[in-house]
Amino acid sequence: MEALVIHAPGDLRVEEVPTPELEAGQLLVRVRCGGICGSDLHYYQHGGFGTVRIQEPMVLGHEVAGMIESVGPGAAFKAGERVAISPSRPCGRCKYCQEGLQNHCLDMRYYGSAMRTPHVQGAFRQQIVVEQWQAHRLADSLSDGEGAMAEPLSVALHAVRRAGPLLGKRVLVTGCGPIGALAIIAARRAGASHIVATDVGNHTLGKALKVGADEAINVAEQPDGLERFTADKGSFDVLLEASGNSRALVGAFAALRPRGVIVQLGLAGGEIQLPINTIVAKEFDLRGAFRFHEEFAVAVELLNKGLVDVKPLISATLSYRDSARAFALAADRSQAMKVLLSFE
Amino acid sequence: MEALVIHAPGDLRVEEVPTPELEAGQLLVRVRCGGICGSDLHYYQHGGFGTVRIQEPMVLGHEVAGMIESVGPGAAFKAGERVAISPSRPCGRCKYCQEGLQNHCLDMRYYGSAMRTPHVQGAFRQQIVVEQWQAHRLADSLSDGEGAMAEPLSVALHAVRRAGPLLGKRVLVTGCGPIGALAIIAARRAGASHIVATDVGNHTLGKALKVGADEAINVAEQPDGLERFTADKGSFDVLLEASGNSRALVGAFAALRPRGVIVQLGLAGGEIQLPINTIVAKEFDLRGAFRFHEEFAVAVELLNKGLVDVKPLISATLSYRDSARAFALAADRSQAMKVLLSFE
Amino acid sequence: MEALVIHAPGDLRVEEVPTPELEAGQLLVRVRCGGICGSDLHYYQHGGFGTVRIQEPMVLGHEVAGMIESVGPGAAFKAGERVAISPSRPCGRCKYCQEGLQNHCLDMRYYGSAMRTPHVQGAFRQQIVVEQWQAHRLADSLSDGEGAMAEPLSVALHAVRRAGPLLGKRVLVTGCGPIGALAIIAARRAGASHIVATDVGNHTLGKALKVGADEAINVAEQPDGLERFTADKGSFDVLLEASGNSRALVGAFAALRPRGVIVQLGLAGGEIQLPINTIVAKEFDLRGAFRFHEEFAVAVELLNKGLVDVKPLISATLSYRDSARAFALAADRSQAMKVLLSFE
Amino acid sequence: MEALVIHAPGDLRVEEVPTPELEAGQLLVRVRCGGICGSDLHYYQHGGFGTVRIQEPMVLGHEVAGMIESVGPGAAFKAGERVAISPSRPCGRCKYCQEGLQNHCLDMRYYGSAMRTPHVQGAFRQQIVVEQWQAHRLADSLSDGEGAMAEPLSVALHAVRRAGPLLGKRVLVTGCGPIGALAIIAARRAGASHIVATDVGNHTLGKALKVGADEAINVAEQPDGLERFTADKGSFDVLLEASGNSRALVGAFAALRPRGVIVQLGLAGGEIQLPINTIVAKEFDLRGAFRFHEEFAVAVELLNKGLVDVKPLISATLSYRDSARAFALAADRSQAMKVLLSFE
Repeated sequence: MEALVIHAPGDLRVEEVPTPELEAGQLLVRVRCGGICGSDLHYYQHGGFGTVRIQEPMVLGHEVAGMIESVGPGAAFKAGERVAISPSRPCGRCKYCQEGLQNHCLDMRYYGSAMRTPHVQGAFRQQIVVEQWQAHRLADSLSDGEGAMAEPLSVALHAVRRAGPLLGKRVLVTGCGPIGALAIIAARRAGASHIVATDVGNHTLGKALKVGADEAINVAEQPDGLERFTADKGSFDVLLEASGNSRALVGAFAALRPRGVIVQLGLAGGEIQLPINTIVAKEFDLRGAFRFHEEFAVAVELLNKGLVDVKPLISATLSYRDSARAFALAADRSQAMKVLLSFE
Repeated sequence: MEALVIHAPGDLRVEEVPTPELEAGQLLVRVRCGGICGSDLHYYQHGGFGTVRIQEPMVLGHEVAGMIESVGPGAAFKAGERVAISPSRPCGRCKYCQEGLQNHCLDMRYYGSAMRTPHVQGAFRQQIVVEQWQAHRLADSLSDGEGAMAEPLSVALHAVRRAGPLLGKRVLVTGCGPIGALAIIAARRAGASHIVATDVGNHTLGKALKVGADEAINVAEQPDGLERFTADKGSFDVLLEASGNSRALVGAFAALRPRGVIVQLGLAGGEIQLPINTIVAKEFDLRGAFRFHEEFAVAVELLNKGLVDVKPLISATLSYRDSARAFALAADRSQAMKVLLSFE
Repeated sequence: MEALVIHAPGDLRVEEVPTPELEAGQLLVRVRCGGICGSDLHYYQHGGFGTVRIQEPMVLGHEVAGMIESVGPGAAFKAGERVAISPSRPCGRCKYCQEGLQNHCLDMRYYGSAMRTPHVQGAFRQQIVVEQWQAHRLADSLSDGEGAMAEPLSVALHAVRRAGPLLGKRVLVTGCGPIGALAIIAARRAGASHIVATDVGNHTLGKALKVGADEAINVAEQPDGLERFTADKGSFDVLLEASGNSRALVGAFAALRPRGVIVQLGLAGGEIQLPINTIVAKEFDLRGAFRFHEEFAVAVELLNKGLVDVKPLISATLSYRDSARAFALAADRSQAMKVLLSFE
Repeated sequence: MEALVIHAPGDLRVEEVPTPELEAGQLLVRVRCGGICGSDLHYYQHGGFGTVRIQEPMVLGHEVAGMIESVGPGAAFKAGERVAISPSRPCGRCKYCQEGLQNHCLDMRYYGSAMRTPHVQGAFRQQIVVEQWQAHRLADSLSDGEGAMAEPLSVALHAVRRAGPLLGKRVLVTGCGPIGALAIIAARRAGASHIVATDVGNHTLGKALKVGADEAINVAEQPDGLERFTADKGSFDVLLEASGNSRALVGAFAALRPRGVIVQLGLAGGEIQLPINTIVAKEFDLRGAFRFHEEFAVAVELLNKGLVDVKPLISATLSYRDSARAFALAADRSQAMKVLLSFE
């Protein structure tokens, strides 16, 4: 079996890796499709992000879907079923797991992550053995690619849940890369009545409109594009900040009403400057959102039922053997939103 | 100008009423369409409900839309605009208004209500003068009838908000009359991932499926229809109880998971029997939902943008001069959901 | 070793039971003090409650404190330490445990409970082997009896948490037996600004005042004692219902403000009659509260630091060999609040 | 009548001001005591804070208590009653007032504030006319000085409410000036089970211990004093940040558990640097807290009943004629917490 292994920045290789054993309650899945995530890109371009660095060769990837090849004893699945695979593998025993906060597990083994050493090997591989609770059946109406989108959609759903109820709320989304665009989809699904998207690129803003934003503002072209939302101390109830850019975050403050909720999904390059007194005086509520857990099942259910449509965000599907081109495309926000790898 | 005035049970008359004066900030609206609500039916059939009784002649009606005929000084509207009219008129000064709980206003003057005497006259009339904050512009894409649905939709939106965030939640709706069906629409809009509807009539259940329920169960035909949802202490996260029937409420307990939220919208004929120990042991959270306030604007915005579709619930539109037939039809759940009166 | 074993209503025997083995992570505790709970009384008087019945001999008791005699391998405790013991033993693996709702565990083994068969044997015994996470160190300033109160205090803390934040809130407590009185203590600790207690007996109301209630009303003597709290739709923010009596529950409705929160702790004899329309119209929020889990540690910490004082509620301590007299006293609310058994 | 009027930094004068007229529903109060707040100090030392600057002479002061001298028609108070006076005067009509968010009123007239021009004149004066809803009766057991503390206590209560329920929670308070110390009092009253206080001065930390902190850490002397709270991703549930110092805020991140709540009360000198990725990865919830409204009544009730004790925080009472010395003392955190002015 082959896998995509990162050795160093720019050094991503197709390598032979052993086929794992199948134990009770496990499934052997033939991976068919995998999405390139921002963190995959960071490993590829910079060897990591923040203080996290590749210390040893690591299979990339955590957004995958495929078909079950065989099942271990006691599994409730059958060979031939198509599934999306959750990369979130908490321990189930630590204090956070026992509080229902699995995304903060003290012993998380998230696919394709160098946060711990030895690194947790990823899912960009032709075959993978998973626990059956990681697998979620896909409806026939869905493509493998849509199945692979369940993971980033889960991130967006989790972020939107962190915002509290959105029914009838006015939502601003800053940064419309794949996660921002999925946040628009999730916010719309959750009942937001008005959604404004900002970005610095027109390709992404076009996609934002396509997936449900009511308005799109290019803040590179119109730096004061949010000014008309600032009357009466601001009009948005919620800001979903998906750019990781402090100018986007702070630039939205005047348009956000008192007691506005900010969900920060985007990771920044480093520290940011914040006018904390505005947070105090307007009593904002700035909440981090990190990964997800139970939202994966929700993502698959919403996809299966057609309650969300992620197809407009799939820009291209390339063979995993063509990874250099795929990663270059994935990095180009003027052309691509989500780029998928085919493992067939 | 003519209005529909209730004098006693069964005694509903078309009568001439004076045209009111127009003051600053007010609008004179030519009413075009009005929906018959359950409370209108109760006044018509029984002269009231619970302890509330008609003490004097009262114009019925609180679900109306129309076109602005003229505007008072300082109004931000123009003649010719089509609007839905909120019947919720809180005082703005009492302690509940000052807490943002306008639906509990100590001096509420809700249209067509005999809760206080003198009664508050209603909106089933050819012309009405309203405060401009009661008026909400309708998109050209909406019919007057859809505009009149803003009011019962507001009730459903308010109830769904009382349930807390629904994104990815499993929801059971018991009772699929107009309010139950609108609750399905609202729950779907709010992101519920699975919605099961129960009722005792197949016409309403058919409508429930049409407006978004995933499954419909006729509990008259299948009394144990919810049994397959009872494993592991129950599988629904939320119950929206819109029947006012204690059997529906209590019959759902086994299918509702621990910490499940029950929103009671339906009014009952009187006291009901409750196994309170089940509420304790499963730590249910039973919340009343009553009317609405700020949700009216949300309802109109969702309708205007096509984010909800209430058309399947409009069964018929009859002239207000044909009120006996209209009220009889509205009372027949085997044929009708919402029956509208035309005032043109 | 001896234990208190219930065989049938009224048939409670001191019997020899085997001393259990000590495994890794476990503690052998010499039980010194145990409190008689309402459920112990029900087993004793009626052989159970609701549908729960004794099917086989069962050691009673779940409110105990003692001294560690010896420790298993890997334990973080030492012999000689005094501890309160949590009777809450969830499985840790089921879906509710993984959501942090251990009190709804699908495989709970709560001490001294006939809810499942074979019954879970209780803690009214001279020695008990516990998992070390069940044990919580007691400060030297606390008596064994106060340590035994950690369990019912946990129930009250859990109920008060279910009510949401209480800082500055007006709280009504109906029913001032041990749990109601502990709810007063917990509500005061949580910052309630005004607490009114009602009951039908003056002994319990005296205790209510002693542990922090601002006012006590004997509703047997003054049936309309709550009337002065009914202006402006009611003045209490929260009702903690600890009587299990529907008259107490419903009788408080007029004094509870719109959006008031009702936490139902008291178990009723059977079904109760409820004016559900009042719950709807005032948008009450009726929440069950059942047992506890993480609150046990909180209870011990608050006791250890003197932040709560339960001593006024300890009415008497009798030898476990004198159980008939102890249970009779515990059942007499005109004389006793909490009756403790000494196992020394 | 005399008042304390600020003209420019350092230029605070005793001046004669006219005695106002008394209208219906108003009270004429003889001010007896006023507390010097951080904002008063900023006006005195720097002529303002942030972008707020004195543009014209302004009476300082907003923390006052006194005795009613005479009452306007229809007032529910009597001459001779002692009251604390809330400086929060929202309009009651704007959208935020109608949502119960009076502290975000679009037309707030808060005493002694240069946020708007003409400035709102303050309460450091011998007599003041107030609306009767600003006045809250003081118990005989309270001194005038304790009455004047109702205002800063309200700020702390509001901040603690913003943190959500604290019963059994572990709380870190950074910055133990008057507001930080009052936050300790409020957190303890709200049921916090463990409170750790940090500051850079031993005088304030001594006061922190006196008013209820379990531990006090001088982070100037022990820069790594919080390290022992960092195991398992951090142990505090809540951080109340009252220093306005970014090092205090950021320095607490490692000791704050995932999903920890940060309430920012302290205002900073300007922008601060924040490791936003930590907020994302640990899913912190950073909430601003600004002023208060309904908490003033709560503050007075808790003071009246002895449920909180602010006496340890009153450092000195000086005549308003001795304002230079009083303001110098108030600025010296090594000697003083709250300094009061006597207007008698």
